Amino acid sequence: MKIGYLGPKATFTEAAAALLFPSQPREPYDTIPDCIDAAAAGEIEAAVVPLENALEGSVNLTLDYLIHEQPLPIIGEIVVPIEQHLMVHPYFTPHWREVKEVYSHSHAIAQCRKFLHTVLKGAKQVPMTSTSAAAKFVSEHPHLPAAAIANRLAAEKYGLVIVQENVHDYDYNHTRFIVVSRRKEPLSPASPLYAGDKTTVVVMLPQDRPGALHQVLSAFAWRRLNLTKIESRPAKTGLGNYFFIIDIDAPMDDVLIPGAIAEIEALGCTVQLLGSYPYYFA
Amino acid sequence: MKIGYLGPKATFTEAAAALLFPSQPREPYDTIPDCIDAAAAGEIEAAVVPLENALEGSVNLTLDYLIHEQPLPIIGEIVVPIEQHLMVHPYFTPHWREVKEVYSHSHAIAQCRKFLHTVLKGAKQVPMTSTSAAAKFVSEHPHLPAAAIANRLAAEKYGLVIVQENVHDYDYNHTRFIVVSRRKEPLSPASPLYAGDKTTVVVMLPQDRPGALHQVLSAFAWRRLNLTKIESRPAKTGLGNYFFIIDIDAPMDDVLIPGAIAEIEALGCTVQLLGSYPYYFA
Repeated sequence: MKIGYLGPKATFTEAAAALLFPSQPREPYDTIPDCIDAAAAGEIEAAVVPLENALEGSVNLTLDYLIHEQPLPIIGEIVVPIEQHLMVHPYFTPHWREVKEVYSHSHAIAQCRKFLHTVLKGAKQVPMTSTSAAAKFVSEHPHLPAAAIANRLAAEKYGLVIVQENVHDYDYNHTRFIVVSRRKEPLSPASPLYAGDKTTVVVMLPQDRPGALHQVLSAFAWRRLNLTKIESRPAKTGLGNYFFIIDIDAPMDDVLIPGAIAEIEALGCTVQLLGSYPYYFA
Repeated sequence: MKIGYLGPKATFTEAAAALLFPSQPREPYDTIPDCIDAAAAGEIEAAVVPLENALEGSVNLTLDYLIHEQPLPIIGEIVVPIEQHLMVHPYFTPHWREVKEVYSHSHAIAQCRKFLHTVLKGAKQVPMTSTSAAAKFVSEHPHLPAAAIANRLAAEKYGLVIVQENVHDYDYNHTRFIVVSRRKEPLSPASPLYAGDKTTVVVMLPQDRPGALHQVLSAFAWRRLNLTKIESRPAKTGLGNYFFIIDIDAPMDDVLIPGAIAEIEALGCTVQLLGSYPYYFA
């Protein structure tokens, strides 16, 4: 069965899907909701969508859609370093330092700012709708003195030559993707990329009052459950109301996490379990 | 003196800048770092950049850049509802239901998914680099059966007619913008949009250990300082290390907030003050 992902083809999302499901056919979807809906309808086995720091996806949308619209469980997560390369048409390889135009997604251009200001100073920066659209454009215009900034998958797909590797300014740039699926069992930890297990919950506070979040975190702290992520997000109900997305650095168990959830619910909070699943580092 | 903002023109960022600085000339910048750098160099009086949930900006970039690269103080914040409208060339107004192509930023297309699936079912959805680029394209191609999804400012700027207002799926969609400037004093609260004051700090934990965040929040909780936002973000130093961005719902004072910061530093954390400033609701 196919694996769906947020398209277009040859983006970082497809690269993440290929790492997790190397032997399955892949299908791009135009939007995050379309991709999640296809997984809910069973048209695809699983959906791979960006969760954090993605170039192409509206990142808040993924969790909002899972929380409010389509409550499919998260069955895995993968963190992929963002490696941007400068690539040109093969015809242009010897003269790449003379490129006059650089095509890429605007966020990728921003990520490669130092490189562009030094090595390709003066070249026009042209935003495209995705890094792979930029690579496609350059491959189709061999007569232009143009380069694209995109990932390795895009260079391979569109027959471009990488003339400078890792032109992004900072090495700590990563993107986080999650896998959601109708099937209840999480992904297998039998992968060399496997790094651990975690559990994600959403906590809605009963009202906005000083210290409420502190009480919620106490329930985890005294059980020595480590939290690796906590993020407040405005609730649908209007400005000033927040819910919290919390990642617990442990798999679901029979005692500790259910105990913490029961205690938080006793405080008057609503708790929604988004999944307990393995995570992978690429 | 000019006010800088993340361009292009006629986006939600320019709308936010116009609300805060109605009588000053405005200058668009291509990237968030360029805009912040111009404010740091004193070329512009202040920079208006997206902080959360923006269509055009890489949102994480704003705080990362302020924290790691260019520590300008935040002097104000404005929350603007995202109102997307369907607009066409005046020539095409009577026949707008027959449009065959809809141009917009991919995130805006995602936000108007239900409308597009019902009212304009079958119309091709074409992603552009920004909502204002989509409006510009439609204004320049009056012969095409095309519509754009963009904001009111774009309709005015490019002479398009809004044929359906508020075509976005959810009313609770807002974007948050901040103002950064070399000048130390915050924006004036003398505005009908003024909604309160807050203080933003960044806390780096000494090491990733269970309950550390809980201790940090205790310092605020027992002082009854309400937190309206808390967000963990991966640190530059690698995967698994986090820092926390915390919004305190109070202006900087002489006792409470300095006391909380001193207590958190005594725990071995590093605390960085990003600003204490008024916030506005549009």
